[in-house]
Amino acid sequence: MKRTLLATAIASLGLFSTVSNAAEKVDLMITDAMVLTMNQDKTVYENGTVVIKDNKIIAVGDESLEKQYKANKVLDVDGDIVMPGLINTHTHVSMTVFRSLADDVPDRLHRYIFPLEAKLVSRDMVRIGANLGNVEMLKGGVTTYADMYYFEDEVAKTVDKIGMRAILGETIIKFPVASAKNADAGIDYTLNFIEQYKDHPRITPAFAPHGPYTNTTETLQKVAKLSLEKGVPVMMHLAESDREQQVIAERSNGLSPVAYMESIGALNKNLVGAHMILVDDNDIELVKKSDMGVAHNMSANIKSAKGVSPALQMYDEDVRIGLGTDGPMSGNTLSTIDEFNQVAKVHKLVNKDRAAMPPLKVIDMATMGAAKALHMEDKIGSLEVGKLADIIVIDTKAPNMVPVYNPYSALVYSANSANVRHSIVDGKLLMKDRQILTVDEEQIRKEALAFTDVVRQTVIESGEVVQ
Amino acid sequence: MKRTLLATAIASLGLFSTVSNAAEKVDLMITDAMVLTMNQDKTVYENGTVVIKDNKIIAVGDESLEKQYKANKVLDVDGDIVMPGLINTHTHVSMTVFRSLADDVPDRLHRYIFPLEAKLVSRDMVRIGANLGNVEMLKGGVTTYADMYYFEDEVAKTVDKIGMRAILGETIIKFPVASAKNADAGIDYTLNFIEQYKDHPRITPAFAPHGPYTNTTETLQKVAKLSLEKGVPVMMHLAESDREQQVIAERSNGLSPVAYMESIGALNKNLVGAHMILVDDNDIELVKKSDMGVAHNMSANIKSAKGVSPALQMYDEDVRIGLGTDGPMSGNTLSTIDEFNQVAKVHKLVNKDRAAMPPLKVIDMATMGAAKALHMEDKIGSLEVGKLADIIVIDTKAPNMVPVYNPYSALVYSANSANVRHSIVDGKLLMKDRQILTVDEEQIRKEALAFTDVVRQTVIESGEVVQ
Repeated sequence: MKRTLLATAIASLGLFSTVSNAAEKVDLMITDAMVLTMNQDKTVYENGTVVIKDNKIIAVGDESLEKQYKANKVLDVDGDIVMPGLINTHTHVSMTVFRSLADDVPDRLHRYIFPLEAKLVSRDMVRIGANLGNVEMLKGGVTTYADMYYFEDEVAKTVDKIGMRAILGETIIKFPVASAKNADAGIDYTLNFIEQYKDHPRITPAFAPHGPYTNTTETLQKVAKLSLEKGVPVMMHLAESDREQQVIAERSNGLSPVAYMESIGALNKNLVGAHMILVDDNDIELVKKSDMGVAHNMSANIKSAKGVSPALQMYDEDVRIGLGTDGPMSGNTLSTIDEFNQVAKVHKLVNKDRAAMPPLKVIDMATMGAAKALHMEDKIGSLEVGKLADIIVIDTKAPNMVPVYNPYSALVYSANSANVRHSIVDGKLLMKDRQILTVDEEQIRKEALAFTDVVRQTVIESGEVVQ
Repeated sequence: MKRTLLATAIASLGLFSTVSNAAEKVDLMITDAMVLTMNQDKTVYENGTVVIKDNKIIAVGDESLEKQYKANKVLDVDGDIVMPGLINTHTHVSMTVFRSLADDVPDRLHRYIFPLEAKLVSRDMVRIGANLGNVEMLKGGVTTYADMYYFEDEVAKTVDKIGMRAILGETIIKFPVASAKNADAGIDYTLNFIEQYKDHPRITPAFAPHGPYTNTTETLQKVAKLSLEKGVPVMMHLAESDREQQVIAERSNGLSPVAYMESIGALNKNLVGAHMILVDDNDIELVKKSDMGVAHNMSANIKSAKGVSPALQMYDEDVRIGLGTDGPMSGNTLSTIDEFNQVAKVHKLVNKDRAAMPPLKVIDMATMGAAKALHMEDKIGSLEVGKLADIIVIDTKAPNMVPVYNPYSALVYSANSANVRHSIVDGKLLMKDRQILTVDEEQIRKEALAFTDVVRQTVIESGEVVQ
């Protein structure tokens, strides 16, 4: 945004106080910032300013903006990096209470996680785990996340309270789970949840069929149809595992998971596919044609030795693709900033090219790419006039962040989640100097620890789950 | 260490104050700790105590130890993880002032790094960069590091002052560099440095021939001979790059870098080889026979797309192998804790096995394995009676570290360098609640930033180095 001639003329009057009188009143102004806008041109303002009114960004530019506005609150960040809040495209936030259990066990989902969940998932567990995960994400610079789990109305209450933004998908799966006795009951649960939250300013309710192999064709078709009717997203694990690939091939006369979804009419613009490891060129064409989104979960995918998604190819071919952490039993942390390094480096390794997946692409996939994957690019993902004010500030004084010759390199190769200083969502400062202002972090940690005693008594002491 | 019968008898007297009177006086006692000893049996004390007198550990055990000693200072860590200080087996600490320059440029070493160093390496640069890197490492839990660079006597002064432990290797290379006009002059420089520091309690001077392809056979043989005479280590990049492999094959009638080193009599117990990516089974046999050490630098190796070292195989075959970060233009951070994740996951990926490289092996390679790689396993690497008191405390209250069902999993899959709360080296508390007690962090950062202005003016504004 350029200074107007009028503003320049007023400024040239020097001592006259008409400058501040003429200045527009705003709520918050971030000054002395290295602003990474992540707009189309990837504009960077080295001495930048971001101006916020209500919950929106109304100006982004250089330091001359300071004179044009009179802010209720000024956040002088002393040269730190200011960028769009990170968007985590795929997680299971409530599973924080299970983190570091049975980490490296083969066939873990079916041998440990499903049985563990059958015993322990409850409204309390979901709320307690979500509170802890929200705190972790907000402290790690995540301002929006996409979740798939059970009792998502409980997660919604925690998101509402802390002040973050989220897409919350209620799981639909063919066997009995804590929140529904079968897939149809899961759909009914989701429809109620949608009614309850469809008008929330920061929460988007969604369908979350667990995967194609854990649901019937009929369920997947029903969900696809309802999602278009209701105008809500569908989030699903897709093309993730050999087991899934095998089940779907048997069901569909040899189709890949993506081709199968297309063949049953369930591949559409409302879908967000998580993992997407086992996709070939034909699948990528189908993904592009459908305009669906993709969540790239590098850290979880390689921890489980499932392989490396062709995420770089998809990004380069303009697929809607963004970074996600997966859940805390998989990732195991919830802020994508701690995965930047792995995303950049593992793609270099598998492409045998140190220039592959440069830092700018990683940051794009963590912000605008992720916004596109969730079809929210008109609202979030960049610092541009008219967008919602979801903004984070990264400390450039921590020793690992000195010096910053290239801010994208510094973020990808050097930063960690503890370098996030402030987090703003919907125009509100939710974390200041690493102190969360909206919830009681210590109380949340204590509740989580109390629940871990239940986990120990229920499944660890009996030897059902290895520690 | 078990309680003695006498101590038990005294304790059973209950109210009598003779307990404290009989207690041995010590300097520091760490209490209420989850102690990971990293001893041979990998003993963990869930309510553990570590007792320190002078610069040594004199007892490690459960909470009953508290009654046997009277400490000048008690550090109650409230259940946090207490473990051996991390040992970084390979870095170039002073290069922090170049961090994030020209990160992803092909043939970067020869096109950018060597020319950059020819212009900018000086005693000042080395001191300023080392001060910054020391702070970063100490805050990230590194208590000992192995360095290869120029003017290592300047690095030594910074290590002496901050209070860390280090092996410092002066670079020997066949072309003119700031500290020496040729390899022989580099050897002379090193010999002087060895004389100066050979009796320092925390600093070990060393030879550091850059690599086999950047030195002549004669130089490598001379260094090997002198290192055995002087009883000091030789640190070298080895089996790192295709270029090196090619040069050495041409020089040696087709030998691998490791086989070449063996053929010229330069593979011995004083050697620490960094990277060691291009090694086959025959090379690994030679490594074992020589009893040399290996520095495994996963993060740098995959960032440069050079490949994945068979480090897991070497570890499993009892090679002396530990983790290293490489320098800040390569790694780019200096604390191995930020690499744990990558080490565990990339080995799973390349082995196609989620059970490969479990967390315990990663932590072992960061502590005892690294101590063995540097032939310091009799002094550091584990919390055992008689060892030097190099100890770190990891915060288990940060949201990413909750809960801790398995401390090794939590450290490898969840922790980052900012989770390090306290660092103790040689029995002295050097960092308490993330505040460094021995040097002025803010002053060090300011000096580093001032130097980056020189870098900008010298090589960036001229376009010699891409930003």
